[in-house]
Amino acid sequence: MSSFLQKLQNSWRSQHSLLCVGLDPNITKIPTELRQDVDPLFRFNREIIDATAHLACAFKPQIAYYSATAAENQLEKTIHYIQTHYPQIPVILDAKRGDIGATAAMYAKEAFERYQADAVTVNPYMGGETLEPFLQYREKGVIVLCRTSNAGSGEFQSLIADGRPLSHHVAMRAATQWNGHNNIALVVGATYPSEVGAIRRIVDEMPLLIPGIGTQGGNLKAILKQGLTKTGDGLVINVSRAIIHASDRADFAEKAAREAGRLSKMINDYRSGSTTS
Amino acid sequence: MSSFLQKLQNSWRSQHSLLCVGLDPNITKIPTELRQDVDPLFRFNREIIDATAHLACAFKPQIAYYSATAAENQLEKTIHYIQTHYPQIPVILDAKRGDIGATAAMYAKEAFERYQADAVTVNPYMGGETLEPFLQYREKGVIVLCRTSNAGSGEFQSLIADGRPLSHHVAMRAATQWNGHNNIALVVGATYPSEVGAIRRIVDEMPLLIPGIGTQGGNLKAILKQGLTKTGDGLVINVSRAIIHASDRADFAEKAAREAGRLSKMINDYRSGSTTS
Repeated sequence: MSSFLQKLQNSWRSQHSLLCVGLDPNITKIPTELRQDVDPLFRFNREIIDATAHLACAFKPQIAYYSATAAENQLEKTIHYIQTHYPQIPVILDAKRGDIGATAAMYAKEAFERYQADAVTVNPYMGGETLEPFLQYREKGVIVLCRTSNAGSGEFQSLIADGRPLSHHVAMRAATQWNGHNNIALVVGATYPSEVGAIRRIVDEMPLLIPGIGTQGGNLKAILKQGLTKTGDGLVINVSRAIIHASDRADFAEKAAREAGRLSKMINDYRSGSTTS
Repeated sequence: MSSFLQKLQNSWRSQHSLLCVGLDPNITKIPTELRQDVDPLFRFNREIIDATAHLACAFKPQIAYYSATAAENQLEKTIHYIQTHYPQIPVILDAKRGDIGATAAMYAKEAFERYQADAVTVNPYMGGETLEPFLQYREKGVIVLCRTSNAGSGEFQSLIADGRPLSHHVAMRAATQWNGHNNIALVVGATYPSEVGAIRRIVDEMPLLIPGIGTQGGNLKAILKQGLTKTGDGLVINVSRAIIHASDRADFAEKAAREAGRLSKMINDYRSGSTTS
């Protein structure tokens, strides 16, 4: 088992949470006084991390929110901060990279050596061969886009070839061909609960990263019903904006913790069977 | 017509070239004396650019070669250098980005505002809706992965749905739905000449970015036969390593110019009909 998967499983248990906090800070929603800081995104993230770490099974920074404004150093600091202060919590770098071998090797180096992420998201369009440079980091996690959360994700992902949608072809390759180091997971959007179920049946206990709860309106209970494994976990349920930008004032960290707590409790109530609806 | 497409068409004509020089510098293949420079990748690129600019219709830096080692500032300098000294030559940022709307907007900002690229490559797996934030930069080019050059690209791109491969579905959407601002192009690998022809028939005069000549062994004459438009252009034929790393010694720029000249002449000989084989 990869170190990433081990770390994630430990985190599900010791943190008693399936909630992933997405660190996609929008500078226009950060309180004015923080924006004056030399590292406003890092400073903001640090407070979010400290306020929500006891509620999260993982943190997931989205790299575009840093690279758009040449703030990669703040992403580096954010990941380093998590790994120093909360070493039990895995960091998933959401980058959706994908390219031919020699270039994919550079992207893998970016994610795993430069940023020291525990896992990275990748795009399968170019074929399984292009995932190899990522998979060769056996201790790391490689989280492959399968069925994404956006409204138009079916345009190609739902095209039927050989009797099944493209997304299921991806899931089958992930389950049967790419997972030799037991370090693969898949992205399946919360906006398609039945797809969470169908893909869960294809990939057995493989972790699923679930975006689309929160701002995008995915149905939490439906995806728990469809996606939980026999051991009552197997899901990394990501919420970004609805947590980190729950308030744009000085109370943002407190409000983030409240929203993360509400979501984590809702997930755990369902898992423990105390919710019957 | 987008500014990018106009600039590319002007470049094809005034530069009398369909050759794109890929700026994917591998630090281990850069002459030792340059590696001591404070900005070795930029310094290397600058010499390559000066040596090959008269032979190129475009330059295409691949971002992974910079981000892997926290050298984004050298990518910025490289693009700025081209646009200052060779403003007639478009810069294609090869980044293969793709994500849901809000995040795609940040990636578009990265490519077009931070780096000031004339065009960027994107991945269509998440659906046409996710390309919108890029397409809204009407003066810029958006170059969508269609059939990539790697050996395993057919794993998903050749799956047949509704009677045609996934790559042709992408090409059809590009031609009929996404190109309202006339700023779309497609990536089609030189390793699949018959696909270049099939996709040319779907997209009419749309520019095709063709990787896979050179190190990957694509067949230059076959792709020219299949891909040239009626006006004898329409192709951006990229060569990276075979040009920029033609030598790893002090003569690297001279050797790069020689290889670029050889390739550009081979392309132009074919276009002018002087090659009959």
